[in-house]
Amino acid sequence: MSITQDTSRAVTDGAAPAPADPAVAFELPQRIKDLGSSQIAEIADLAREDPDVIKLWIGEGDLASPEPVVEAAYAAMRAGQTRYTYSLGLPKLREALSDYHRRHWDVEVAPSRFSITSGGMNAVMQAFQAVLEPGDEVIHPSPAWPNLGEAAHICGGVLVPVALRRDAAGDFVLRLEDIFDAVTERTRVIVINSPSNPTGWVMPREDMRRLAEFARERNLWILSDEVYNHFTYGNAIAPSFLEVCTPGDRLLVTNTFSKNWAMTGWRAGWVIYPEGLGPVFAKLNQYNTTSIPTFIQHAAVVALEQGDGFIRTMVGRCAESRQIFVDGLSRLPGVTLSVPEGAFYLFVKVEGEPHARDLARRILREAKVGVAPGTAFGEAGEGCFRLCFAVSPELAREAMARLNTFFERRASR
Amino acid sequence: MSITQDTSRAVTDGAAPAPADPAVAFELPQRIKDLGSSQIAEIADLAREDPDVIKLWIGEGDLASPEPVVEAAYAAMRAGQTRYTYSLGLPKLREALSDYHRRHWDVEVAPSRFSITSGGMNAVMQAFQAVLEPGDEVIHPSPAWPNLGEAAHICGGVLVPVALRRDAAGDFVLRLEDIFDAVTERTRVIVINSPSNPTGWVMPREDMRRLAEFARERNLWILSDEVYNHFTYGNAIAPSFLEVCTPGDRLLVTNTFSKNWAMTGWRAGWVIYPEGLGPVFAKLNQYNTTSIPTFIQHAAVVALEQGDGFIRTMVGRCAESRQIFVDGLSRLPGVTLSVPEGAFYLFVKVEGEPHARDLARRILREAKVGVAPGTAFGEAGEGCFRLCFAVSPELAREAMARLNTFFERRASR
Repeated sequence: MSITQDTSRAVTDGAAPAPADPAVAFELPQRIKDLGSSQIAEIADLAREDPDVIKLWIGEGDLASPEPVVEAAYAAMRAGQTRYTYSLGLPKLREALSDYHRRHWDVEVAPSRFSITSGGMNAVMQAFQAVLEPGDEVIHPSPAWPNLGEAAHICGGVLVPVALRRDAAGDFVLRLEDIFDAVTERTRVIVINSPSNPTGWVMPREDMRRLAEFARERNLWILSDEVYNHFTYGNAIAPSFLEVCTPGDRLLVTNTFSKNWAMTGWRAGWVIYPEGLGPVFAKLNQYNTTSIPTFIQHAAVVALEQGDGFIRTMVGRCAESRQIFVDGLSRLPGVTLSVPEGAFYLFVKVEGEPHARDLARRILREAKVGVAPGTAFGEAGEGCFRLCFAVSPELAREAMARLNTFFERRASR
Repeated sequence: MSITQDTSRAVTDGAAPAPADPAVAFELPQRIKDLGSSQIAEIADLAREDPDVIKLWIGEGDLASPEPVVEAAYAAMRAGQTRYTYSLGLPKLREALSDYHRRHWDVEVAPSRFSITSGGMNAVMQAFQAVLEPGDEVIHPSPAWPNLGEAAHICGGVLVPVALRRDAAGDFVLRLEDIFDAVTERTRVIVINSPSNPTGWVMPREDMRRLAEFARERNLWILSDEVYNHFTYGNAIAPSFLEVCTPGDRLLVTNTFSKNWAMTGWRAGWVIYPEGLGPVFAKLNQYNTTSIPTFIQHAAVVALEQGDGFIRTMVGRCAESRQIFVDGLSRLPGVTLSVPEGAFYLFVKVEGEPHARDLARRILREAKVGVAPGTAFGEAGEGCFRLCFAVSPELAREAMARLNTFFERRASR
């Protein structure tokens, strides 16, 4: 695949002359020529089908989707739920989402404020389409899930990364003042992804409140990507901007069925928009994808109504495997990591590794463990890799053993 | 739903003061404020769940999706095909699409030129994202499927409709010179949807060749939406731009599983791009929707490999029901229609009807037949309605009987 050719060019560090880029030959718009390829997809494409590789590169676990969800999809298909449906999604799904938010966060979000999208990804795309003018600035903490920025880029946005800092214990923190200082007259959106992919940083509720006030005063939008809300390793689920904002605030919340219910391959998500913008998001969904598959929406209702126990299982396994990796990795020489408060990733810095993509490829080749290169998440990730720990403790132990061997060999070279 | 409030405002013709528009209050970008609501979705939302209504408003038939396709989706779900997959789609699906094009049009399109998208709709969205700069002009024959233009609009495009003409027999024709004359230095894309929704017009192969040459000389893109290619009522399937273009031409072809295999609610389609642009479209798919659901891709392979007979059944029923409506409608006083060469719609002009939306609502209310207002397809559709005849001959006869009664009563008022 050409996407991997592109990678190898970057990795060989300009030694050979770059072949003519078709995107240039076809005179595509600059913002399209500038799109980064997904460094996660790139490495995954190298060994997606290799059963010997332990795949910790992508944000998905090793559990199958819940059986009642699969059966509900099948029953809906058999019942003829294979036709076009409402642009905003099935009314009963939007009601089930409203119930879900009341149950877990004790917030009232009217069913009329939900649109059902093709995964969290298309929720993000539609959010940016709705509010960005070309040249508008989009502030986001860095390192970050790259797709957030690339979607903004496609919509003409200009990214303004604000680096997370490290506290005394080495853990990631966001200084709100760093965000405030980055605001200019072209700023339109502040993106927050808490719990954060890839750092595991969780924004405290009080910071959410302060940021919401700041944004309200300046008519800025907050795009809050809350897909890891249930994945925390303390006593409570992560706070939501829905707790500190009103239905009239410029808040867009994006979310997905992918992580909670092991439904990554179903491409089902949602966006919550302010009161009154239903007609706008109905059009956006209509003109982006028409809707998501009808029978999948019926299955999603079952995930919401019967899936709380599944979430607990998922999070429990993550907690156990997180500990295995934290214990194992922190014993390795030259390795620095912060213990993540939320999400299901470890973002690991390795001393003496100038090329994150090269490091990830060596780990893949030599240890048969698939990790994502840190540079997939911004320049701050150079020399790092990200590992997803949403796997069984057994698999985590096996992966850790392979990483031990890799780092021992590396040290002895 | 607020989307219908919007409609009623338009229909009451400005009698009441318009309520404050939230899109204005939230200072959304002008191109988003200007988005048209789907007049098709609007009327469908009025009676989607009413079993007494014969629904001919949307471009979908009354057949269930093929059983082998449903079973393949279920088998794939059970086999764990519920995870993330390749950005461009499953290799075996892209190969099956290459075979499909060879089999039906005798063209060689390499598997590397296909990306699997969330319906034809997201294929169109990605095509415009790939090539449009804000302010670029997009020429398209009118009347047209509105979503084509709205997707261009979201990407900053400026629509330039070119009216189809009527020949001596009253049938729609496109004068290529009308397209050539509409080109300016800002023109970037010429959109052709042949066979055409809503007119049934089919572009002759020789015109395709001339247009392709013209576009090649001027470095213009052709976006060819070919979703009704199999739905023709003469001796051959409709020609494709793939027959007259080279892999290096600025051609984007969008297509879907929806129409051929009664899979409207599955949201599966594809875009064909020029040789070499795979990395660009991999990124676009990644940042739009990540991919379409993995198990649906497995089902789509079965549609391609086992579904030629299903297409013949679909088209055969359409041919029969088309004749029933053409015979019935052409007998009605004040009704003008052209006999469609392709697709599965009748675009019907009714004398003495100044408001197409009002007409469609009266037909819904009084005849219990759901049709789309002609204005959904551009201003040229004022006083018209569009009817989808992809239904069983029995249902076509029943709908025609209801329409007879409606038009008799109307004449006697």
